[in-house]
Amino acid sequence: MSVKSYVVYLQNSAVALLTVFGLCVRLSLTVQVGLSNKVLVFPYETDFSFVALVPQKELELRAFTLCMRVATELPEERQIILFAYRTADYDELNVWREKDGRVSFYLRGDGVFFHLPPLTTFRTSLCLTWDSHTGLSAFWVEGKRSTYQVYKPGHTIRPKGSILLGQDPDKHLGDLEAIQSFVGEMTDLNMWDFVLSKSAIHAWNNGHQVPKGNIFDWATIEYELHGNVMVVDDD
Amino acid sequence: MSVKSYVVYLQNSAVALLTVFGLCVRLSLTVQVGLSNKVLVFPYETDFSFVALVPQKELELRAFTLCMRVATELPEERQIILFAYRTADYDELNVWREKDGRVSFYLRGDGVFFHLPPLTTFRTSLCLTWDSHTGLSAFWVEGKRSTYQVYKPGHTIRPKGSILLGQDPDKHLGDLEAIQSFVGEMTDLNMWDFVLSKSAIHAWNNGHQVPKGNIFDWATIEYELHGNVMVVDDD
Amino acid sequence: MSVKSYVVYLQNSAVALLTVFGLCVRLSLTVQVGLSNKVLVFPYETDFSFVALVPQKELELRAFTLCMRVATELPEERQIILFAYRTADYDELNVWREKDGRVSFYLRGDGVFFHLPPLTTFRTSLCLTWDSHTGLSAFWVEGKRSTYQVYKPGHTIRPKGSILLGQDPDKHLGDLEAIQSFVGEMTDLNMWDFVLSKSAIHAWNNGHQVPKGNIFDWATIEYELHGNVMVVDDD
Repeated sequence: MSVKSYVVYLQNSAVALLTVFGLCVRLSLTVQVGLSNKVLVFPYETDFSFVALVPQKELELRAFTLCMRVATELPEERQIILFAYRTADYDELNVWREKDGRVSFYLRGDGVFFHLPPLTTFRTSLCLTWDSHTGLSAFWVEGKRSTYQVYKPGHTIRPKGSILLGQDPDKHLGDLEAIQSFVGEMTDLNMWDFVLSKSAIHAWNNGHQVPKGNIFDWATIEYELHGNVMVVDDD
Repeated sequence: MSVKSYVVYLQNSAVALLTVFGLCVRLSLTVQVGLSNKVLVFPYETDFSFVALVPQKELELRAFTLCMRVATELPEERQIILFAYRTADYDELNVWREKDGRVSFYLRGDGVFFHLPPLTTFRTSLCLTWDSHTGLSAFWVEGKRSTYQVYKPGHTIRPKGSILLGQDPDKHLGDLEAIQSFVGEMTDLNMWDFVLSKSAIHAWNNGHQVPKGNIFDWATIEYELHGNVMVVDDD
Repeated sequence: MSVKSYVVYLQNSAVALLTVFGLCVRLSLTVQVGLSNKVLVFPYETDFSFVALVPQKELELRAFTLCMRVATELPEERQIILFAYRTADYDELNVWREKDGRVSFYLRGDGVFFHLPPLTTFRTSLCLTWDSHTGLSAFWVEGKRSTYQVYKPGHTIRPKGSILLGQDPDKHLGDLEAIQSFVGEMTDLNMWDFVLSKSAIHAWNNGHQVPKGNIFDWATIEYELHGNVMVVDDD
């Protein structure tokens, strides 16, 4: 992810950076490392606040597990982007809370929708697994698996895109919309290039030891903060 | 249950069998045995996907306990067949999730309806007990008993029918309707020709040892897959 | 808080004091001390029943933690005052259950709103933390933190006001409204002039030992009962 790519954002976010939260909000074109025991707080609805993540390896994926803990005060009928991975022309892997309250994910094209308990002001522990071989996909809420749905068997997620938290870029790092932005807290985001076992997801949910994420590992994650995003102690 | 009986289905399901799920979907006129640690996944709404079960003994019953774990993404107002046992002219024992969200069962004729917590994308542990002597019937959700209802005391369920998961046959193995079909997951189906004690149902709910089902025992159950039904590891 | 200030209330509450709860309702202009293992019961909707609290130190605050356990049968759409601290001209710190069910607090002016689980007939353990330095504010329900909201960073709560439970004074100890009054039970109210750690709030929630509140400590709290408020054993 080049420095150049973010210049467009800097113009938008310049005002936002002059804030009373000087202690917490940082303008950073430099990659920072590690969020152990930290929470990302997106305090307001904006079209310029996001966190760019640098993966440990390219997202050329035929299977994955994505986990995070997320909390939001946004109303139930509000669309919310939870994770966005985009290559130049395609949304490769987007996770949404939809307007109708369902949680969904999209691999290039039409998505698949799940009825989960609503996201609330309290932290929800959320994992998503998908395996191209069978197409079996499921969300895991507090370690409990949703009903499997069969989605895009045979599909491959393509590499060399950008990963954003907080905003949905409608083109490669552009066209952000406040109305889709994330407001609330995210922590403990981890990602693996395989499907974790049920017992490993239970362990992760309970804060126990699991294999470190080989795409993202929260403790050593590389990230860049843009706009109004605070990094606070998990307390 | 004769092979001949299924020929009518083969015509309907021939297309479905040519699918990308070749690995999981099997065309089988041969009875398979045992589903220990396996889940049946009914991924789509169809009028041709079902699992036929072969009981260990005839269902000539004056009492029974039927248990299963079930999960579905189907909307609340959708009727869903959960278990169908039919002789030539009658639905002998059908279990439904009704359009109004109640769960019901029918022994030849009018049914009896229970207000239970909704079936969701997460697995619900569901048992049903009925005793002809008293007519006492109840559903048990996660080991908790519903209020008893008195239903058809003196009645006997008749033998020599067919048992289907996933579809409701309106005649003996015919007239399937997609709009009543099951979509989701079923596992751990067990059936006894007597009423299990409360403590036994609690034990079953918690995955502890109970008397093996003498009509159906999931670990050794005989079954035939038809149409798009996947057998996947319980993970 | 002068004796003179309450004369206006005595006229209103004189009738109320002649009640069947004579044993429990006390007319007291004298400050009483300590509510260990006691619950305050506000049995009816009134515009004259309240409890005035005398703090151990002035509420000149740039941070605080306020905890209480609260139960109410009031309908969800009813506004309820949960805590009121008012100086001559301003509501310095008010905590409300709003008409729309959200829980809110106000520091001189516009408030901040949280979607929490509804208050019910069962006791809810509720804490509120706020830190002027960052503006980070949150409610804690049964020890679980809500999503942080950033609210009035840099603000200072001013000293020398009056603290009331049960009523919202629209001027310094005047203009009470039955329709905003509290009906139900309150107990274990404690307040600190700093933000308790997550582990301390968990401990408090579970009834374990925590640093004694240095503004209010339920075991040694100084209070005055007015109108129909009962002090009963927490049984």
